[in-house]
Amino acid sequence: MSGVITLLTDFGTADGYVGEMKGVLLSGAPGATLVDIAHDLSAQDVDGARLAVARYWQRFPAGTVHLVVVDPGVGGPRAALAVESEGRFLVGPDNGVLSPALLHADARCVKLAVPAGAAPTFHGRDVFAPAAAALARGSSLESLGEPWATPVVRRTPEAVRREDGSIAGMVISVDRFGNAITNLVTWRGGAVDVAGKVLPILRTYADVEAGGAAALTGSSGLVEIVVRDGSASARLGLTRGSEVVLRPR
Amino acid sequence: MSGVITLLTDFGTADGYVGEMKGVLLSGAPGATLVDIAHDLSAQDVDGARLAVARYWQRFPAGTVHLVVVDPGVGGPRAALAVESEGRFLVGPDNGVLSPALLHADARCVKLAVPAGAAPTFHGRDVFAPAAAALARGSSLESLGEPWATPVVRRTPEAVRREDGSIAGMVISVDRFGNAITNLVTWRGGAVDVAGKVLPILRTYADVEAGGAAALTGSSGLVEIVVRDGSASARLGLTRGSEVVLRPR
Amino acid sequence: MSGVITLLTDFGTADGYVGEMKGVLLSGAPGATLVDIAHDLSAQDVDGARLAVARYWQRFPAGTVHLVVVDPGVGGPRAALAVESEGRFLVGPDNGVLSPALLHADARCVKLAVPAGAAPTFHGRDVFAPAAAALARGSSLESLGEPWATPVVRRTPEAVRREDGSIAGMVISVDRFGNAITNLVTWRGGAVDVAGKVLPILRTYADVEAGGAAALTGSSGLVEIVVRDGSASARLGLTRGSEVVLRPR
Repeated sequence: MSGVITLLTDFGTADGYVGEMKGVLLSGAPGATLVDIAHDLSAQDVDGARLAVARYWQRFPAGTVHLVVVDPGVGGPRAALAVESEGRFLVGPDNGVLSPALLHADARCVKLAVPAGAAPTFHGRDVFAPAAAALARGSSLESLGEPWATPVVRRTPEAVRREDGSIAGMVISVDRFGNAITNLVTWRGGAVDVAGKVLPILRTYADVEAGGAAALTGSSGLVEIVVRDGSASARLGLTRGSEVVLRPR
Repeated sequence: MSGVITLLTDFGTADGYVGEMKGVLLSGAPGATLVDIAHDLSAQDVDGARLAVARYWQRFPAGTVHLVVVDPGVGGPRAALAVESEGRFLVGPDNGVLSPALLHADARCVKLAVPAGAAPTFHGRDVFAPAAAALARGSSLESLGEPWATPVVRRTPEAVRREDGSIAGMVISVDRFGNAITNLVTWRGGAVDVAGKVLPILRTYADVEAGGAAALTGSSGLVEIVVRDGSASARLGLTRGSEVVLRPR
Repeated sequence: MSGVITLLTDFGTADGYVGEMKGVLLSGAPGATLVDIAHDLSAQDVDGARLAVARYWQRFPAGTVHLVVVDPGVGGPRAALAVESEGRFLVGPDNGVLSPALLHADARCVKLAVPAGAAPTFHGRDVFAPAAAALARGSSLESLGEPWATPVVRRTPEAVRREDGSIAGMVISVDRFGNAITNLVTWRGGAVDVAGKVLPILRTYADVEAGGAAALTGSSGLVEIVVRDGSASARLGLTRGSEVVLRPR
């Protein structure tokens, strides 16, 4: 137990929904440390949440509870889950947002019971937050529900090696700076074809000429397309799914 | 005492004003747990703040101090208040933002002294944060100022029952998803007239057909108008004050 | 040591980069208290970050560690710094964001070693957060790197006294409310010339007529141009650098 509970939602904060969840968390786990990851994900962006979770969930100490509520299917037949994986706990809907943790061989997963009286539009407050609080105060995963053998797992599509030796990938996300992150695993040397241009693979932003475009090794080990002091997404018209081809040297 | 201080403001965060307040809070109440509710309320939106407070203030443990600074009248004649109600404390301007707590019969209220040297444009830092810190470290409400018998209380307008049995209400807020929350208390069955349409009252988003509009029981027990995977506000042209009529079955 | 680590970045939160940093902080300094200042600074706005830091860094208790990552030069030749000043610690790039602390005579500064394997695009996670965690758990400044005698210091341009006794200044920032903060130190009485208008210097917003423009003494002791219940920036066309002249009475 670390007593740490992180929160990732697409609720925004102004409406007070996240405030309600935080109150439930601190009432259920007094003294817990709440850590905001983000609440401004694009509404119902399950894949964006999954990619964010992949970045941070293992960076936190063992025992951390990660609460992830991006939940377009709330109140419907989708299950509510709690997962234990690599010593961390995750709580959220069974729609793929917890995939990064579920992909580990040691992952265990239970289906949370939905309490009578839970608002069918707000499981974040009435189902997920109480479960996260229970885990933070030391409850076992198994005490929260029955084992669930078939959680939804969503994967980033893998890049494809082609006959000519090139590797065909795509943009999987665009960050706040307009950097386009791809599913191409980093390569030393070579070039990237994107949006009708051939870009060199450089080391960092400072190696790119002012206003120029390039490919870099991003901080998760994936190739990203950047424009120095500008937005690659805007300049090159890149969005999720845009084709990017790596040509190894 | 829970040692928890929550913060709700319309300051945004980028200018550093909230940072200043947090520094004052932690200097005045070392070890306190600061919990952000929101800082991105619409500027000077007293009613939006009041509705958010209504959602979260009682969800937190007894002893929690809720700091609420949406304060268009700062530096003018409006009083600065601290309130104790249902075991929680609230601190903020006397403009109605604290109404949800003031409406309880046991609520007590004092007028905070304004320290000499307080910036007349920033009572959040110089009046409210020091008072919140004092309460978090165990000071009594009465030690902070003289009793204040006439705090401003703002209420959500009540829906009106009409002769034909229908109930005339209105939209009181629109959330980040474009859901339009009304002042109509939930009803089983029946239908809602809104924006020239008649909508069924369903249980949850998953019961609404893709792209369809409906009325639901929201998580605060009020009817809300939603569009599945879309914005009811945008689709139906709903804003605060839009008329909504409930026709019980 | 206060165990408090504050975070100011221009990363936004949705991409999970701040989440990664928070995980590194709590893994390196278990039990630390993380305090968000802001993550929504304009991208690469070094001066905006510097002005925010100036507001909050001394408001926090002695021992606080302020992590400031607005870092357009990441991975390039700019140094990574840690600073101790007035009993607080600051960690961030050597581009001027830490200037408010460096301007104190007692400030000490070291150049952080960049660990092998640090991502050249994300020193926030791999260089600055580990250093901040080390300081929060009690490491000395000197243990983190070699003394650095020539940190970049950026200053707000000083207003200029002219022969006719007036003082020529400029707008240095515009806040969320559209208030335009200037580099003119507060003056009692007199008037301000701005955007072709002559504005009185009043005490607080409540002294301004509805919809009217005025100059006020801001909460940092600088003159600011405001419009009651509106945006001075939008109404008067003020941006950073706009000329403002104080005419003392």
